[in-house]
Amino acid sequence: MQYQAEVTIELKAGMLDPEGTTIKRALEHLGYGTDSVRTAKKYTITLQAKNIDAARVNVEEMCQKLIANPIIHNYEIFLRELE
Amino acid sequence: MQYQAEVTIELKAGMLDPEGTTIKRALEHLGYGTDSVRTAKKYTITLQAKNIDAARVNVEEMCQKLIANPIIHNYEIFLRELE
Repeated sequence: MQYQAEVTIELKAGMLDPEGTTIKRALEHLGYGTDSVRTAKKYTITLQAKNIDAARVNVEEMCQKLIANPIIHNYEIFLRELE
Repeated sequence: MQYQAEVTIELKAGMLDPEGTTIKRALEHLGYGTDSVRTAKKYTITLQAKNIDAARVNVEEMCQKLIANPIIHNYEIFLRELE
């Protein structure tokens, strides 16, 4: 079966987000006030697995070994079967 | 009122995604086969506006003027009111 995983990688609360701060400042220069801007990455991974549990285990391992840094990131996985 | 906008910026279909390709290859080296890996950015913006329509107009303009490049990106805005 083919599955699609949407993985969102966010900085943990309290971690500095210099990219977000820069965008907030740039928006102010353009006249758009905001209270805060936080950035995150999203990865859309399609993969083959024998069932959704196996797909989830696989994507969890990918996050832990490569995609996220568990010291500074939280991650969230949303999985669905493709037709 | 305070609103929170989740803005997702994706490359348009057909645009090369070298970061995704690199991650796909790195995952293969670790023993995780995938069919594809696509990357996107997510911005969480909190802002003040007099109503949700005004907030949407503001965030649309932020995307068009600064956050997204309409030639290569699609963007999606999900807005909600913060109590």
